[in-house]
Amino acid sequence: MKLARFKRAGRISYGIVEGQSVEEISSTPFLPYERTGEVYALEDVRLLSPCMPSKVAAVALNYSDHVKEMGKQVPVHPVFFFKPSTAVVGPLDTVIAPPGCERLDYEGELSVVIGSVARSVDPARAKDVILGYTCGIDATARDFQAEDLQWGRAKGFDTSAPLGPWIETELDPVDLALTTRVNGSVKQKGRTSSMVFSAPVLVAFVSRYVTLLPGDVIMTGTPAGIGPMGDGDRCTVEIEGIGVLEVGVRGPAEA
Amino acid sequence: MKLARFKRAGRISYGIVEGQSVEEISSTPFLPYERTGEVYALEDVRLLSPCMPSKVAAVALNYSDHVKEMGKQVPVHPVFFFKPSTAVVGPLDTVIAPPGCERLDYEGELSVVIGSVARSVDPARAKDVILGYTCGIDATARDFQAEDLQWGRAKGFDTSAPLGPWIETELDPVDLALTTRVNGSVKQKGRTSSMVFSAPVLVAFVSRYVTLLPGDVIMTGTPAGIGPMGDGDRCTVEIEGIGVLEVGVRGPAEA
Repeated sequence: MKLARFKRAGRISYGIVEGQSVEEISSTPFLPYERTGEVYALEDVRLLSPCMPSKVAAVALNYSDHVKEMGKQVPVHPVFFFKPSTAVVGPLDTVIAPPGCERLDYEGELSVVIGSVARSVDPARAKDVILGYTCGIDATARDFQAEDLQWGRAKGFDTSAPLGPWIETELDPVDLALTTRVNGSVKQKGRTSSMVFSAPVLVAFVSRYVTLLPGDVIMTGTPAGIGPMGDGDRCTVEIEGIGVLEVGVRGPAEA
Repeated sequence: MKLARFKRAGRISYGIVEGQSVEEISSTPFLPYERTGEVYALEDVRLLSPCMPSKVAAVALNYSDHVKEMGKQVPVHPVFFFKPSTAVVGPLDTVIAPPGCERLDYEGELSVVIGSVARSVDPARAKDVILGYTCGIDATARDFQAEDLQWGRAKGFDTSAPLGPWIETELDPVDLALTTRVNGSVKQKGRTSSMVFSAPVLVAFVSRYVTLLPGDVIMTGTPAGIGPMGDGDRCTVEIEGIGVLEVGVRGPAEA
């Protein structure tokens, strides 16, 4: 099932996407809900970020080919940092280079959406707290990342966490193709089977330390092929079984 | 004025602390409010974290004496990372060492509470978006910090961000004594005048990149003298003009 959040006639709702339409639900995917019978064509609504995370826990260096391109060692356990709620944007929104940033990078990532409060979850039970999966971009001010010991600025700036287009609830995340394109040209082509730590292991690991709330997101890291985006570019992340997240880009002037 | 958040008879309110009592206000410090005339003795209420940040932006290496003890260079601009909302606790709460942590450290910090939405604020206007100041502890799993490239686990675990006891709204943050004690013994004794970047400069810098929301907190870094806490310890952070934040400690077994 594909769960979306959308705006129509000024009102924000959640709904179930089927083919080219979306049926509104009575509350949110994080509460009991019913189908309302109100069905809209997808082209008549504006899709929003499919959830409103209180935090995004983003995992660093989780694909061995990306670890190699960054000249790092494969971590012995997952390493993560936080992007704040103010970083989240949705489909067809614009990633805006922060002031002074001279290199703004895409990083396409499978993103786990938490469905219920999760604390010290066993990896074997992780799927019980996972609502589903969506596409994400860990937009990165690469020059800031190189300068700064911690990446609050480089990876936490406003618009740095696009999510969408919806949450796919019936998906085995173990071996999915992930493709990032800029202006239609393929930049990253990976498979989630190359992840160092799988999605359930990441949920278990993060939740040992940090309570995860409904709607919180874990971005699971990016495969090789990172690179810059420039002003006016269109970036898409396509994940097999989910769909395509597309965003625009504003700045930096030259990429 | 001292603004507190407190619980009494199961109900959570905000109020104004005067002497040994607190007068309830009609809403929150982030909205228009009136005094209600309901006054309680402080000893009859339970003080809570004085605000509920959507995020805490915590600044690294912002006192030159602490930079020296960590063997680092003074940064050329502020460096920050995020602690999530789930890390926040209040006065007399307990900082709990995360699983596997063998060294849990105090870091006493002047903490800025944002009063209104702040984006690209000029340093000279920063005080317009600052509601006030409170005491904070950037509790740190020092062993995790040494292991991990990014500090999500080391500094973002549940209970890692004690705040309180209240927000002092009439305070010049420029030269205040800050004293951290463990079981009454002085561990850190600094002055905010030793900060590399002042509170208004930090608000301006962070808000260039990240929109700050009402109730969000900037922890401004810790002076020299960091060290461990052990199971059953009591840790206090006293800041001149604000008051004393006290927390308990659970684990690690040996410190």
